[in-house]
Amino acid sequence: MIAIVVHGGAGRWDETERDGAVAGVRCAAAAGWQVLESGGGALDAVTAAVIALEDDPLFNAGTGSVLNAEGDAELDAGIMAGDTLAAGGVACVRRVRNPVLVARRVMEATDCVLLAGAEAVRFARDQGFADYDPVTGRRRARWRAARARQAGERLVPGTVGAVALDGNGRLAAATSTGGRELKRPGRVGDSPVPGAGNYATAQAAVSATGWGEFMLRMAAAKTIATRIESGESPQSAAAAVLEDMERIFGAPIGVICLDARGAVGIVHGTEGMPHAWRSGGDDDFKARFAT
Amino acid sequence: MIAIVVHGGAGRWDETERDGAVAGVRCAAAAGWQVLESGGGALDAVTAAVIALEDDPLFNAGTGSVLNAEGDAELDAGIMAGDTLAAGGVACVRRVRNPVLVARRVMEATDCVLLAGAEAVRFARDQGFADYDPVTGRRRARWRAARARQAGERLVPGTVGAVALDGNGRLAAATSTGGRELKRPGRVGDSPVPGAGNYATAQAAVSATGWGEFMLRMAAAKTIATRIESGESPQSAAAAVLEDMERIFGAPIGVICLDARGAVGIVHGTEGMPHAWRSGGDDDFKARFAT
Repeated sequence: MIAIVVHGGAGRWDETERDGAVAGVRCAAAAGWQVLESGGGALDAVTAAVIALEDDPLFNAGTGSVLNAEGDAELDAGIMAGDTLAAGGVACVRRVRNPVLVARRVMEATDCVLLAGAEAVRFARDQGFADYDPVTGRRRARWRAARARQAGERLVPGTVGAVALDGNGRLAAATSTGGRELKRPGRVGDSPVPGAGNYATAQAAVSATGWGEFMLRMAAAKTIATRIESGESPQSAAAAVLEDMERIFGAPIGVICLDARGAVGIVHGTEGMPHAWRSGGDDDFKARFAT
Repeated sequence: MIAIVVHGGAGRWDETERDGAVAGVRCAAAAGWQVLESGGGALDAVTAAVIALEDDPLFNAGTGSVLNAEGDAELDAGIMAGDTLAAGGVACVRRVRNPVLVARRVMEATDCVLLAGAEAVRFARDQGFADYDPVTGRRRARWRAARARQAGERLVPGTVGAVALDGNGRLAAATSTGGRELKRPGRVGDSPVPGAGNYATAQAAVSATGWGEFMLRMAAAKTIATRIESGESPQSAAAAVLEDMERIFGAPIGVICLDARGAVGIVHGTEGMPHAWRSGGDDDFKARFAT
């Protein structure tokens, strides 16, 4: 049994971008599936899927990330292997193309889990990650307009992620984001933090999207994983935590998750969340804008 | 019913420092107790207790923090209010006296939960926190010796914290640290991250000490809080997670925790963890080097 689920962010999407976003998540799911189908590991599958989303300028991650209060792109990403609980994350990194790869390097080449800021960029350069400007003209124009309004929208197309189950029964999760538009420089969101926006164990893999501060305060991804470990289905676990978050914080989130038998959970409290998945004997990908 | 528990870090303590550390945690517990006894809130109590520990150069937090690989003190701190799930944290901040106060300011004066690095220091300065050198001669000498050995000890006196219950039934937790000796610059530990080294809900408050990366990978504080919320006693919940951490990572931790009825949990898998507490009708503080 192999499975992959990918999301492109819960939030507001322009009508004109929805088809492109659905095509983008389908493409990312296919990249991850190919890894799994050829015998690759869950960690490589979520890495491949998230790279595809980071490189697609339609999504708020990697190239095409939204800009912070000072007009800079500060990127967060996290990755986790369920079988070993190995985790890596980077927060507030500038001028790198694929933050998920830097997060994975933190996991594999250091004794740290989370690196932040300029020192994280220094680590990336030491590891050979080239200088790269992820800011697109479209996001720059959007930022100018948002700044003129003096406030970012509460939800913008935000945060991408993937969860996967490989042929050896291992789960993994990866999540990447440009964060919130007009965010304060130095703000660390939930995506790079194990248990907040991203989490994986032997029995559950979770990637979440939404207002990162609420996810951090709830330890949302950990909460969903704990429910799945207690025997709840991924769909039911994700729905319960979505409901809790709406009740406690009044904020909708989006979640994708998997258990070790390949059961899929996909929920969102927002109008849309482009997502795609394929599990076990499915003969093709399913890809949708909303559930 | 009011209650406070304070710890000064699980780790290796020189024989000559143990009495001083026990006196220090007793003093910090008294500072927190005084707040509670005069009708103050749990948040103010844990703040007062942690300030006392940060200002005591014997502990690895605030003044007297251990130094990173490059000889700088990079400080992490987190605070959380159980009744509102409000949380604040700072990571890798340099040259501030009381990181717990900056963490609290993040919680109260921004829409962020976690700020990191140079931008977090900029926020602190904007908020009026003065430039302050927390490095003591003793830690500098220790760092020179550790660097000469080319490796830090796996456990040094590390991470302080406090949990409190106030007369209105509110719980809070605060945790502060200089982190691991010789750590990589930019490394974010568990202390500032809600759910990792620090957590509070309506029913549980938790502060943990130990190898931060394992705490992040386990979401240790959240795990303990969830167990307490399920009806387990704080002592049993903390002991169970200590055992899990030792089994999974081979790493001992220390934990203090409280539930909403003032029941206390105190465990450590290390030789010592200076701690002090007072709850409800106790007629004085209890303070010990080891349980």
